[in-house]
Amino acid sequence: MLRGIGDDAAVIRPSSGHALLLTTDLLAEGIHFDLRTATFEDIGYKAAVANLSDIAAMGGRPQYMLVAVAIPASRTSSDVDRLYRGMMRACRLHKVELVGGDTSASRHGLFLSITLTGFVQAGRVLTRDGARVGDLLYVTGTLGDSLAGLTLLESGRDRRAAASGRLNQRRRRYQSYLIDRHLHPTPRIKEGQLLAAHRLATAAIDLSDGLSGDLVHICEQSGVGAEIETSALPLSPACRAYAAASRLDPVRLALTGGEDYELLFSISSGSRAKLERLARRTGCHFSRIGTVRPKRAGLRLRRVNGSSKRLAIAGYQHFQDPRTIPHEAAWSR
Amino acid sequence: MLRGIGDDAAVIRPSSGHALLLTTDLLAEGIHFDLRTATFEDIGYKAAVANLSDIAAMGGRPQYMLVAVAIPASRTSSDVDRLYRGMMRACRLHKVELVGGDTSASRHGLFLSITLTGFVQAGRVLTRDGARVGDLLYVTGTLGDSLAGLTLLESGRDRRAAASGRLNQRRRRYQSYLIDRHLHPTPRIKEGQLLAAHRLATAAIDLSDGLSGDLVHICEQSGVGAEIETSALPLSPACRAYAAASRLDPVRLALTGGEDYELLFSISSGSRAKLERLARRTGCHFSRIGTVRPKRAGLRLRRVNGSSKRLAIAGYQHFQDPRTIPHEAAWSR
Repeated sequence: MLRGIGDDAAVIRPSSGHALLLTTDLLAEGIHFDLRTATFEDIGYKAAVANLSDIAAMGGRPQYMLVAVAIPASRTSSDVDRLYRGMMRACRLHKVELVGGDTSASRHGLFLSITLTGFVQAGRVLTRDGARVGDLLYVTGTLGDSLAGLTLLESGRDRRAAASGRLNQRRRRYQSYLIDRHLHPTPRIKEGQLLAAHRLATAAIDLSDGLSGDLVHICEQSGVGAEIETSALPLSPACRAYAAASRLDPVRLALTGGEDYELLFSISSGSRAKLERLARRTGCHFSRIGTVRPKRAGLRLRRVNGSSKRLAIAGYQHFQDPRTIPHEAAWSR
Repeated sequence: MLRGIGDDAAVIRPSSGHALLLTTDLLAEGIHFDLRTATFEDIGYKAAVANLSDIAAMGGRPQYMLVAVAIPASRTSSDVDRLYRGMMRACRLHKVELVGGDTSASRHGLFLSITLTGFVQAGRVLTRDGARVGDLLYVTGTLGDSLAGLTLLESGRDRRAAASGRLNQRRRRYQSYLIDRHLHPTPRIKEGQLLAAHRLATAAIDLSDGLSGDLVHICEQSGVGAEIETSALPLSPACRAYAAASRLDPVRLALTGGEDYELLFSISSGSRAKLERLARRTGCHFSRIGTVRPKRAGLRLRRVNGSSKRLAIAGYQHFQDPRTIPHEAAWSR
């Protein structure tokens, strides 16, 4: 970096031979976050992750961040400090520098807009439009944890139960895990860079709106259909336990839960052995969840018994209003 | 550009041998704009200009734009179209491409955050910290027009008078000019590039908060003081006429009026002849308004009669609430 905060613009020296990546995300109070269930640090952290995850989905290395924030008069400067502390914690983990921004008053809620740059070797960018019929579909990590964590936070019920000591130790540990997955998701930067460096992925996207919603983007932009195997969807033990205790379908959690910030990607079937070797060598966690089909097949879900049905595509709400949507109701809509 | 809207991030090819500029600005409803005095197109246009002006102040050529917008449910999609139309109009004038963004719902007002990239030949970036004692201070264009236009818009009085035909033709023309200068300011990109290409400016900044406010940034970052000659402040005939009709001090308009988006810059005294030659050749308008002084001298204002006083530094409010601040009162605070 040649010049950061304190002038009309930041001045950076682009890496030669690299493509520059630019992404921006806006988070609005009451839409993307709720100060009843997340601290300012949590919000800052997750806002940074949302952008880091976009760079990961392009196979890039994140580099510089600009932050614009509008702050209502009801918030104190230490609230803003905490917001930045959360952002900077996520940035430090990935060696990202804050180089500029804008701070404004707000007559209404808190708004946070982050722009992140990254870079990737020219010609190795991961895009959404390269999936071909016969390619294999993979995801990183596990799915549904974030939505399970959010529902726990919003119900507040289990937290109170946990506090009162009514929950056994394992359940408490699981709940902490799910809440942490919701508040502090991991951007899959290492995985994205690996896929780009080895030219493995034919298409990639990060899961911010849930598997069913984000798969649509890859299919539309690649002009293909897809078949997902429900039995192959990776679920954490905590998510399975939560689903069982709440009498929820864990497959539904995995398909519709947003904000997991895992990567969904396709590889050609010939690359499978190479991907699996790489996963073992690097400790990265990839699960094969389905196959790219012709466009006319649409998006389908195949169950263990071999039956197949059309995949329902639901939009993801970043949070439910706990005053109006009770604990279980979020699942029965 | 390699890839624009429609993936997780935009992919651009940086120009080799150039420094990359990055700037971001957030505009909040009720703080930076008021839908009672500006249309969605006006707001979009000026939001783009605020960013273009930052790139101008670095001597750069603007290139790619990302837009994040949070929209309340009360706004229609054609409002958003108009907002983008305004932004794109400013972008087209300066060959800027929209490469990405984010759109969100808003529970509260409209928020708009723009990030703009630009580039400038490495080593020729205009910064705020290079002004030296003895340097000459210049501005582009004229000062105070935007604040005069804003006050006209907010009072509504003169517009009604204009509509009723009570104003003479020249006054109507002047008022339209001032309102247009407020709603559609010109980012001084050509001027900034000229100063950078010829290595003329020792420091530069754009005037978004008013001359007195922005001069402070150059002085603080360069570790110097400054003396401004009131008689040298460039005023448009329209602004002079408006000040006379409203019994206002035009110097105060020029010093405190924000959003003129002119450039303030310093050059070494030896570069004066070269700057003036360039101005004649290119048709650019530069006015010498003062001199860089030692830091201990502070910021001073020298009147025609030779008397000198300390420059008062006032923060700029992007608009007054017309229900609470009457037409003239804005000047007597």
